[in-house]
Amino acid sequence: MKTEKAKNVPAGPVKEKEAKGVTMRVLMSEKDGAPNFIMRIFEIEPGGFTVYHTHPWEHEVYVLEGKGAVRQKGRDYPIEKDSFVLVTPDEEHQFLNAGNTPLTFICVIPRPAPKE
Amino acid sequence: MKTEKAKNVPAGPVKEKEAKGVTMRVLMSEKDGAPNFIMRIFEIEPGGFTVYHTHPWEHEVYVLEGKGAVRQKGRDYPIEKDSFVLVTPDEEHQFLNAGNTPLTFICVIPRPAPKE
Repeated sequence: MKTEKAKNVPAGPVKEKEAKGVTMRVLMSEKDGAPNFIMRIFEIEPGGFTVYHTHPWEHEVYVLEGKGAVRQKGRDYPIEKDSFVLVTPDEEHQFLNAGNTPLTFICVIPRPAPKE
Repeated sequence: MKTEKAKNVPAGPVKEKEAKGVTMRVLMSEKDGAPNFIMRIFEIEPGGFTVYHTHPWEHEVYVLEGKGAVRQKGRDYPIEKDSFVLVTPDEEHQFLNAGNTPLTFICVIPRPAPKE
């Protein structure tokens, strides 16, 4: 068993250079003995966004703080604290902060990841 | 894609009769096109608890509100808002509300579930 406060996990930048103002904390992964999926927390600063992209695995997202949107095919779907989002495999998506405070959300992905 | 507010998902009692004061919302599952894992929200009222048990799948937990503990082999590990907990497969565990307000947490489990 592992239990910890999320703020005690170091935050690092995401790898995609096209993202703006996004950091990530990996809370639980295969390194901790989690066999099937990884729980991460993303924080997007005001005006920031993740990459608009697609991949063959799903996201299960839960918004902890802030206001923003999920963008898909030119349409923005509003999200805020206590919204959840399922992005199914191969769906285009982008997360944006549309507020004046950080947008923070949990995002769970499967492991091992399906092949791209 | 599916996005919704968690409060708009109906809450129902958990199936285990030995639990006390526990309700559950299923946010995202295979019914929604989520192939690998299910995100649920549990709410435990003050004085309530889940069953002390074990099973061959993991939990990835994130606490949204309240104060409580995870009990394992007679020891209580405190949890509160923004704590996370990894319970690996076959570990004994029980969640308890140790506060005066509801204890609410996300709990992710794999699908299909490993055989018991």
